[in-house]
Amino acid sequence: MGTRVAIAGASGYAGGELLRLLVAHPEFELGAVTAHSQAGAPVTSVHPHLATLAGRNFDAATPAALGDADLVFLALPHGESAAVAASLPAHVKVVDLGADHRLTDAAAWTAYYGGEHAGAWTYGLPELPGQREKIAAATHVAATGCYVVASTLALRPLIDAGLADPADVVIVAASGTSGAGRTAKAHLMGSEVMGDVSAYKVGAHQHTPEIKQATGATSLCFTPVLAPLPRGILSTVTARPLRPGLSSDEVRQALQAAYADEPFVHVLPEGRWPRTASTFGTNSAHLQATVDLDAGRITAVAAIDNLGKGAAGQAVQCANLMLGLPETTGLAINGVAP
Amino acid sequence: MGTRVAIAGASGYAGGELLRLLVAHPEFELGAVTAHSQAGAPVTSVHPHLATLAGRNFDAATPAALGDADLVFLALPHGESAAVAASLPAHVKVVDLGADHRLTDAAAWTAYYGGEHAGAWTYGLPELPGQREKIAAATHVAATGCYVVASTLALRPLIDAGLADPADVVIVAASGTSGAGRTAKAHLMGSEVMGDVSAYKVGAHQHTPEIKQATGATSLCFTPVLAPLPRGILSTVTARPLRPGLSSDEVRQALQAAYADEPFVHVLPEGRWPRTASTFGTNSAHLQATVDLDAGRITAVAAIDNLGKGAAGQAVQCANLMLGLPETTGLAINGVAP
Amino acid sequence: MGTRVAIAGASGYAGGELLRLLVAHPEFELGAVTAHSQAGAPVTSVHPHLATLAGRNFDAATPAALGDADLVFLALPHGESAAVAASLPAHVKVVDLGADHRLTDAAAWTAYYGGEHAGAWTYGLPELPGQREKIAAATHVAATGCYVVASTLALRPLIDAGLADPADVVIVAASGTSGAGRTAKAHLMGSEVMGDVSAYKVGAHQHTPEIKQATGATSLCFTPVLAPLPRGILSTVTARPLRPGLSSDEVRQALQAAYADEPFVHVLPEGRWPRTASTFGTNSAHLQATVDLDAGRITAVAAIDNLGKGAAGQAVQCANLMLGLPETTGLAINGVAP
Amino acid sequence: MGTRVAIAGASGYAGGELLRLLVAHPEFELGAVTAHSQAGAPVTSVHPHLATLAGRNFDAATPAALGDADLVFLALPHGESAAVAASLPAHVKVVDLGADHRLTDAAAWTAYYGGEHAGAWTYGLPELPGQREKIAAATHVAATGCYVVASTLALRPLIDAGLADPADVVIVAASGTSGAGRTAKAHLMGSEVMGDVSAYKVGAHQHTPEIKQATGATSLCFTPVLAPLPRGILSTVTARPLRPGLSSDEVRQALQAAYADEPFVHVLPEGRWPRTASTFGTNSAHLQATVDLDAGRITAVAAIDNLGKGAAGQAVQCANLMLGLPETTGLAINGVAP
Repeated sequence: MGTRVAIAGASGYAGGELLRLLVAHPEFELGAVTAHSQAGAPVTSVHPHLATLAGRNFDAATPAALGDADLVFLALPHGESAAVAASLPAHVKVVDLGADHRLTDAAAWTAYYGGEHAGAWTYGLPELPGQREKIAAATHVAATGCYVVASTLALRPLIDAGLADPADVVIVAASGTSGAGRTAKAHLMGSEVMGDVSAYKVGAHQHTPEIKQATGATSLCFTPVLAPLPRGILSTVTARPLRPGLSSDEVRQALQAAYADEPFVHVLPEGRWPRTASTFGTNSAHLQATVDLDAGRITAVAAIDNLGKGAAGQAVQCANLMLGLPETTGLAINGVAP
Repeated sequence: MGTRVAIAGASGYAGGELLRLLVAHPEFELGAVTAHSQAGAPVTSVHPHLATLAGRNFDAATPAALGDADLVFLALPHGESAAVAASLPAHVKVVDLGADHRLTDAAAWTAYYGGEHAGAWTYGLPELPGQREKIAAATHVAATGCYVVASTLALRPLIDAGLADPADVVIVAASGTSGAGRTAKAHLMGSEVMGDVSAYKVGAHQHTPEIKQATGATSLCFTPVLAPLPRGILSTVTARPLRPGLSSDEVRQALQAAYADEPFVHVLPEGRWPRTASTFGTNSAHLQATVDLDAGRITAVAAIDNLGKGAAGQAVQCANLMLGLPETTGLAINGVAP
Repeated sequence: MGTRVAIAGASGYAGGELLRLLVAHPEFELGAVTAHSQAGAPVTSVHPHLATLAGRNFDAATPAALGDADLVFLALPHGESAAVAASLPAHVKVVDLGADHRLTDAAAWTAYYGGEHAGAWTYGLPELPGQREKIAAATHVAATGCYVVASTLALRPLIDAGLADPADVVIVAASGTSGAGRTAKAHLMGSEVMGDVSAYKVGAHQHTPEIKQATGATSLCFTPVLAPLPRGILSTVTARPLRPGLSSDEVRQALQAAYADEPFVHVLPEGRWPRTASTFGTNSAHLQATVDLDAGRITAVAAIDNLGKGAAGQAVQCANLMLGLPETTGLAINGVAP
Repeated sequence: MGTRVAIAGASGYAGGELLRLLVAHPEFELGAVTAHSQAGAPVTSVHPHLATLAGRNFDAATPAALGDADLVFLALPHGESAAVAASLPAHVKVVDLGADHRLTDAAAWTAYYGGEHAGAWTYGLPELPGQREKIAAATHVAATGCYVVASTLALRPLIDAGLADPADVVIVAASGTSGAGRTAKAHLMGSEVMGDVSAYKVGAHQHTPEIKQATGATSLCFTPVLAPLPRGILSTVTARPLRPGLSSDEVRQALQAAYADEPFVHVLPEGRWPRTASTFGTNSAHLQATVDLDAGRITAVAAIDNLGKGAAGQAVQCANLMLGLPETTGLAINGVAP
C-alpha cells in the first residue's frame, strides 16, 4: 500500500499537473483532491486530459478530507496556505506550491505580495547546496517559484564559484501562459496571446526577491516576458565576471561540476542552447552558458517546464525526498516533443 | 533482463517518439537505434528532448545491428520496410510504422503510393474486432496510419452495429504538422504554418484506401486539413443513419459498448466534444458522437495524438501484445495539458 | 468632408476591426465610437494596436451620439440591434454585424437563438446573385455571419448552376478564436487553445439555418471546429453532384464564372488549395474545388478572415455600396503574411 | 504616372512584404520583380496572399529589368547587394534591405559577416537625429537591421540625453520566425518552433556591431531569442543610469521628447508595456521604459514588426524620403490585431 497523498487546490494548472504526476506515481495512492469552487464537479470537466480520473469528482476542501493523507500538496492562491496547513494533523507532511512560505525576509513579502508574512518553510529546491538534506528532513517545504528555478539553476553555481558578480544581475525570462494561471482574464485569451510577445511587471515582479534570495544576487534587474506557448520558461541571465579573462569553458565547467550528479539538470554540449520544448512535460532543466569577452558579461540560459520543474514536478521531487523515496520516482526527464 | 528492441529510422518524428517511449518502457532494453543519414551523430543533436540519451549516437543501419534485437520497429520512408524486414533473422519480430504492409489491395497501393505492393501484414489496430488476438499471434505487424486510427475508432463500431451507412462517408480531419514529417520543406516552416489552416490532397490522400479497408466504408470523401499545432488529429466523420429515427443515445451506446473494456479509448460524457490537447503525449483516443436529425447524418468525432495512438504509441501497444506483455505497459493514458 | 460613420459596440473584436478599417477609409469621417461597459475608457486600453486613436475615449452609447452619423455600424450582442436601430433618426443608414436581422424564418431564429425574431433586413452578402443592387438601395443591411460567408461563397454557385445537390450538404469548418468574441472565458484562454483543435456545437451551431438560407441547401450537416489561430475560417463543403460524370473542371468553371468580376473572391489556380493565412487582414475569400469521382462528392473549400470578409470587411463593403462609393474603397485584397 | 520601383529578391519574406506595400502604395508603379531561383514562376506560387498579383510571374534578375526603375529595393542575401547596385544606371536610387552597407567599421563587418566589406551607405533609420535629412538627400540607403531598429529606438534617446550609460548595455530580444528567412531549415519547421522558446547565437549575433553603431553603446551583451510567432520583435534593453536618483518619469519624458513628432514611434501611456501584436503589419514601434531603483538599471522595451519597421516598412519610409513624398505614404500605423 502506497503513501497517501492529497491535493488542496487541484483545479488550477499546477494542481492539474500534480494530479497527472500523482496518478502515475508508483508509490503514491491518491487521497482527497479538493477544489474550492469546483467541489462536486467531475475532475475531467476541468482537466479533460486526465482520462483515468473519469468518474471522480473534486472533493470539498475540508480539514478532514486532507488530514487523511500522509502528505498534502497545497496549490492555493497566495495567502491561503498557512491556514490550511494549520488545520492538518501534526503528522501530515506538507509541500506548498504557492509563494506564502518561500521568502525569509518578511519585509520583502509585504513589499511584493502585500499583507503579513506567514513565515518561511524549508526551501524546496533540492539542487541548491545542502538543500536536499534539509528537504529530506523537513515536514513543511515551500517549493520554488517558476522563474526562480530557471534563473537560480543558471546563476547560483556561478556566484558560488566566485565567477559571477552578484551585484549587477540582469534577467529577462520568457514564460508560457500557464504560468499566469487558469482564471479567465481578457489579456490571457487565446486571441490575445497567439502571435504576441509582451513584457509585463517590468522591474516589479513578485519573484524578484525570491530570485535574489535563492541565487545570492544582491542587485537584480528582472523583466518577465509573456510568450505564445502554453508551457515553458526560458531565462536569460547575465552578470559580470569577477575574474578578468574568465573563459566560457570555465563557466561551463562550473555548471557541469555543480550538476554532475543531478538527474534533472542537463548542461548541454557546447554550442547548443536550451529550448523550452525539450523540457515539455518533464522535471528537467537544460542549461548553457558563455562569456562575451567584448561585452564583459557572462550569459547563462536555462529552460524548464514552468508546470514541471517550475511547479508540480519540483513539488513531487521534494515529496519523494521527504518520504525517503528515490528522488526521481514518478518524474520524467525526457520531454514530449515535438 | 528485458526484451531487446531496436528502431530502424529513429531520426524522424515517429522514431523520436518511439525512442521516448522505449527508454521509459519497464520491460524493454534498447538495442540498435539506426538512422541512415544521421549514423554516428548524437541522438540529442536530433532529439534534444531525450536527455537521458546524452552520449549515445545513432547506429549505422546494418542488418547485424538490428538483427540483435528480439523486436524491431521500422519507422522508414515508404517503400523501404520490406527490404529491411527481409534482412532480419527469422526469429526477430517486426512492427512497421510505415504504410508498406497495411493495405490488402495491391491495386489500391499502386494507385495511391505508386510502385509494386510489398504485401500485407497483420493489421496493427488492436481495437478492431478480433484483431487483438491476431496481433498477439503475429510476427509481423503493420501499425495503422494516423488519420486511419482516428477515423476508424469513430466510425467502425457504427458500421458494424448497422447504424451507419458505409456507402456515403464524409471525413474532414485536421492534423498537426508533425504528421508531415521532419524533412525541411518550405510549406511546413513555422512562419508558414503558424496562424494558418489549409486543406491539402483533397480527395487524393494516400490514407483514403486504408480508411475504407479499416472502417468498411464503401465510399469515402476524405479531406485532410493542416492545422497550426505540432501534434494532434481531430477527425470529423459523418455518415447517414441506416435506421430512421436513430437517436444520439443509440449511437453513443454503440461506441460505449465497443470500447467498454478498451483502456485507451474514451467515449466522453454527453455534451463534451474531443480536444486534441487532451491526448497530447498519450496512446489515448477521445470520442463523441451525435445524430443530427434535421440533416439526417450521424457525426462522430475522434481526437488522438498523431505521434502516439497515430504512430509510436500504437506500435508499442502492438509490440506489447506480440510479446505477451500487458497491453498498456509503458504507455500513457492521461495527456500532458495544458 | 467625408461621410460620417459611427460604431455601436466598438470594444469587441469585430468592433475593433471596424475601427481599424474606418480610420483608414479615405471617404469616412469617424463619428461616435460607443462601447457600453467601456464608455470613457481610452480606445487604446482595449485596442492597443490602434495607435492613431491614442487620446480618444469610447463614447457613451446614447442615441444622440450615434444619431449624428450618416451611417451606423452595429456590432452588438445578439438581441440588441433592433432597439438601437429604432432609436436612430430615419435618415441614418444602418449596417448590422450581428445576427438579429439576417434570418427570414422567424421559427429558425427562435429555434437557434431563442426569443422573438426582430425581422429580416436586406442580406449583406454582395456576391449573391442580384444582392449587390439590393444592398445599394437599402437603408438597413444585415451583414452575413462568418461561417456563412465562407460556406456560401464555396457552395452557392454550384447549387445555382445545378451541379451540386442541395439535399445532402456536409460542412466542416475550422475557425480562429476571435470568432468566439472578446469576453474572457476559461475554454478560450491561450493555455487552452494553443496546441488544441476541438469540435463544438456539433449539429447545433446557430449559423446552420443561415447557411441553408444563403446557399439554398435543404439539408445541412454542419460541424464547427475551433483551431489555434486568432483569425481565419477554412470551410470544407461537400455535396453530391447532380450530374453523373461531373468533372472537377466543370465545378471550377462554375466558380470562376460566378466570381469573374468579383474583386474579393479568388478562385485559385488548379492544384492550389486555400489557406487562411493568405486572407489575414483582408476582405478576400480564396476558393478551390474538386470532384472526387470515387466518393461521388464535390468538395469545395473556402478561406476567409473571419473578422474581415466574415465581419467588419463585409460590413464596410456593404456600407460602400449603400453610400454609392466604389465597393473596394478602404478594403484590402492582399493578405498580411506570413 | 507614379514613380517606378523595382525589387531585386522578391521571393523572400522581406521581399514579399515589400511587394505587399508597393502594390498598395498610391505613388508607386511596380516595375521589375526579380527572384533569382524563382524567375518565371507565378508570384502567387510563393506569396499566395498577394492575390492582386495573380497572373504575374517573377522576372529574371537582369540589370536591364531593374535599371528601368527610378528606385530599386534590394532584398538579397548578404554579400550580393554591391554587385547589383553597381550594375544599375547612375540615376537609379537604391534602398538596400540587406546588411552589406550598414556598418561603417570594415573590421566589424569582417568579424561578424566574413569577407571584405562593401562600404557604408547612408544609414536608413530616419528617427535618428539628423538622419532624416541625410536619407532625403541620399541616392543609396542601407535600411536598418530588425533587432537594431527596436533596440535603437528604445536606447538611443536615453544615451543621447545623458541618462543611460553606454558602457554596459544588456539586450535580450525575442523575434518571430520570419526574421530567420524563408529558406527551409530543419530547426525552423513548424513542428519545432511552435510551443518552443530558445536562445541562439548568444553573444555572437551579427547585429551586435550595428546596434552599437546605431545606439552609441560602447559595450553590448546581446542575446537573441526565437519565439513561436511569425512576426514581431520585442527588445528588452537595460542600462545603468548616469544620474543617481534618475526617475522613471525622466526616462519616459526623454523618449517622449525624442519622438513627439514621429508618426511611427509611440511611447505608451505609463503602466502599459509594448506587445508585438499591436505592431503586426505596420511600420510602427511601441515603446515603454522605467527605472528600477533597487536594481540600479533603466529598462526600456520596444516592439516592432520585424518585416515592417524592421525591414520592408522601413525601406519604404526611406524611399518616400528619398523621393520627396510624405514620409508615411503607403505605410500603416495601426496594427492588424488580434
